[in-house]
Amino acid sequence: MTSMMRRLLAEFLGSAGLVAAIIGSGIAASRLTPDDLGLQLLINALATSSALFVLITIFQPISGAHLNPVITLVDRGLGNTNTYALQYVFAQLAGGVVGAVLANVMFGLDAVSFSAHQRLGWPHALSEVIATAGLVVVIFVLVSLKQHQKIAVSVAAYIGAAFFATSSTAFANPAVTLGRVFSDTFAGIAPLSALGFLAAQIVGGFLGLIIARLLVDASVKAALAETRASD
Amino acid sequence: MTSMMRRLLAEFLGSAGLVAAIIGSGIAASRLTPDDLGLQLLINALATSSALFVLITIFQPISGAHLNPVITLVDRGLGNTNTYALQYVFAQLAGGVVGAVLANVMFGLDAVSFSAHQRLGWPHALSEVIATAGLVVVIFVLVSLKQHQKIAVSVAAYIGAAFFATSSTAFANPAVTLGRVFSDTFAGIAPLSALGFLAAQIVGGFLGLIIARLLVDASVKAALAETRASD
Amino acid sequence: MTSMMRRLLAEFLGSAGLVAAIIGSGIAASRLTPDDLGLQLLINALATSSALFVLITIFQPISGAHLNPVITLVDRGLGNTNTYALQYVFAQLAGGVVGAVLANVMFGLDAVSFSAHQRLGWPHALSEVIATAGLVVVIFVLVSLKQHQKIAVSVAAYIGAAFFATSSTAFANPAVTLGRVFSDTFAGIAPLSALGFLAAQIVGGFLGLIIARLLVDASVKAALAETRASD
Amino acid sequence: MTSMMRRLLAEFLGSAGLVAAIIGSGIAASRLTPDDLGLQLLINALATSSALFVLITIFQPISGAHLNPVITLVDRGLGNTNTYALQYVFAQLAGGVVGAVLANVMFGLDAVSFSAHQRLGWPHALSEVIATAGLVVVIFVLVSLKQHQKIAVSVAAYIGAAFFATSSTAFANPAVTLGRVFSDTFAGIAPLSALGFLAAQIVGGFLGLIIARLLVDASVKAALAETRASD
Repeated sequence: MTSMMRRLLAEFLGSAGLVAAIIGSGIAASRLTPDDLGLQLLINALATSSALFVLITIFQPISGAHLNPVITLVDRGLGNTNTYALQYVFAQLAGGVVGAVLANVMFGLDAVSFSAHQRLGWPHALSEVIATAGLVVVIFVLVSLKQHQKIAVSVAAYIGAAFFATSSTAFANPAVTLGRVFSDTFAGIAPLSALGFLAAQIVGGFLGLIIARLLVDASVKAALAETRASD
Repeated sequence: MTSMMRRLLAEFLGSAGLVAAIIGSGIAASRLTPDDLGLQLLINALATSSALFVLITIFQPISGAHLNPVITLVDRGLGNTNTYALQYVFAQLAGGVVGAVLANVMFGLDAVSFSAHQRLGWPHALSEVIATAGLVVVIFVLVSLKQHQKIAVSVAAYIGAAFFATSSTAFANPAVTLGRVFSDTFAGIAPLSALGFLAAQIVGGFLGLIIARLLVDASVKAALAETRASD
Repeated sequence: MTSMMRRLLAEFLGSAGLVAAIIGSGIAASRLTPDDLGLQLLINALATSSALFVLITIFQPISGAHLNPVITLVDRGLGNTNTYALQYVFAQLAGGVVGAVLANVMFGLDAVSFSAHQRLGWPHALSEVIATAGLVVVIFVLVSLKQHQKIAVSVAAYIGAAFFATSSTAFANPAVTLGRVFSDTFAGIAPLSALGFLAAQIVGGFLGLIIARLLVDASVKAALAETRASD
Repeated sequence: MTSMMRRLLAEFLGSAGLVAAIIGSGIAASRLTPDDLGLQLLINALATSSALFVLITIFQPISGAHLNPVITLVDRGLGNTNTYALQYVFAQLAGGVVGAVLANVMFGLDAVSFSAHQRLGWPHALSEVIATAGLVVVIFVLVSLKQHQKIAVSVAAYIGAAFFATSSTAFANPAVTLGRVFSDTFAGIAPLSALGFLAAQIVGGFLGLIIARLLVDASVKAALAETRASD
């Protein structure tokens, strides 16, 4: 395989694995404890966070492990032209849908069923804006500080916390949002709500980029040197 | 931005993110499983611990990631004059309040509501003294041993354990305590109780500083050399 | 002891410890909360994931910590002739059975009881194929990238997530599957179902090997260099 | 303070902190969810595991962070004469009792109450033998392999898993066992049972030492070199 095909395969498999973990663990949790929403979401959050950690760990050296169109587009906006944004986004979206199908089939459900789970309203939209902005800040601050090796565990911890800190359970990822449309189960989202989430995630991506640039810019090295001196 | 503005922004955003995670996850947990206090606090503790890890990880290289007036004041007491204690404390307190507002709004509540959650009594006060002293010991022993890179995971684990090891759920942070006054939800604290917690945290800060200095002082290098030789 | 005996002892003890943790925590969880399947599986998953982390951490420098015949056979297929595949597999299978006996006895049960827990059906088989393929991908991508030190935490996170992301709870290991036959408790599996799981795990092992080779091959260094340049 | 006083203070504070976390989180969990034993033990295990991680992390560079008479005695048996075994054991036992008192007082209980919680029987005894042997293996294999920096996270994961993998909840530590006698709460143990646990822990310590020596002995470097070559 060419290097580019390898990278697209990594983005595809990573996004599929992530969505399969989110939807699969949601189905498992809701079957196991049908009456306890808190435990269901805890199981869903722990499985998602663990999956994110391992997927970023193994795919980061191959493709950068964006696994999220917002991250790819922000990366493109920063001028990293080698990231082939459109192909990455397509691989991520395809992965998201395939991951949903895999989860459905692994649990003996129809391969595709459209979710009827409405997640509308301003609190959800605001939650997605903030959750996505925070995710962008986490990743791009670490990239700016050359701390790539901390991204996997930081993103896992961030999403694990944001699952509960927001009212939307922090999708924060258009590929994940699209995939969740294709499963009428615990973690699903109805198509109309998905459009709202997508819009909020794009706004959040821009907001996160602005904040990240305020925190770490060209003078970051000077700031770091000063910080170390005063520790 | 100047380096100082960047540092204050980091302290502000970090404190806001921390309080938003604490209050938001408390609201989510109490809505999801209204009858199970243990599960509510477990979700609250896991979200808080995860948030602390990621916030310290990304803001430590920028501002030191104090996110806590007690840490800033102890740091100042140790003679680290470059830390601009007053501005840091102001940014932390403002962040705490803004984080509470964000959490309230993300869950569709009024932006501000004063908590009626009383947390009075000597067991709570003693718990805050011990929890804050332990937090100061953890941080300043690691700083003294030049193990800065272990602070994020250690503080996260410490607060995760202290949530349950104490009867006060280990606020251990005046900025967090202030923020929690502004949300009449699961993680809130009534103003009068907050004053008691604040006093206990200050006492705990001094106690922690004394213990930390006993554990690691000017002769620490000799002790370390001896320890290594005997391993 | 010779080096080979030491390695086989590590594979034996590691597999025994893993199965004892899986079966023991299953017994404990089902006794403690008999009515809450979700919490039972959460406890089972956390104990298993933690055990995997520590067992791989301590045995990896001694034997490579395969603890799984699929991993040993894939490793053999890759031409690592020094791994003595047959002895490894025998030590792993023996460890799995002994671990089950240990767990039974530690909880005051008969040393051996054959499980009557049926886990048949295509969703389970597909789950085992995917879970095993994913495990092989995680391990061999990290090995190919010379990231051996990340295998313990990655495998632990992977299995923790796959417990819930699949309908089979992701055995993904013939030695674990065999051991679970010998305990008629929460984590047990009936002999006939075990044969089905074994077949699925072998298919999954091949599938994982194919995917891993697509992701990282001889040109991986060039790809890595390119990735780094574009970050 | 002299180096030795500093080390004894570390062993004392570490043991006190560990026991306070175990007993305190047990009280909190049993108050919060009185009817759910599984969730109580999960909270207890997570708090204990997190506390172990942070206590070993901060005290390892000062005293070695044994926090456990079995570890100190095995260390002494290995000829590390500089560890001052008797003083260490005394500091650990005193810390265990003080930690129990602290937990009792932090939760508004009498400073001391003797536990009536019987934990007798061969399954419990066998569990303590195995749990302690495993703990010794984990620590001394890592020490032999010069992987001291992995001890904190490995011991935390090990105890977290062993809490559920054994029927005794894996005390595996005479100082912790003694401390738990002094609190008639969730995590307590009646004096007679404590004696049985102590005997089992000593047997387990010897067993663990034997196994650790089989796994890593004088020829370990040769074995390691061979292992690496065949990876």
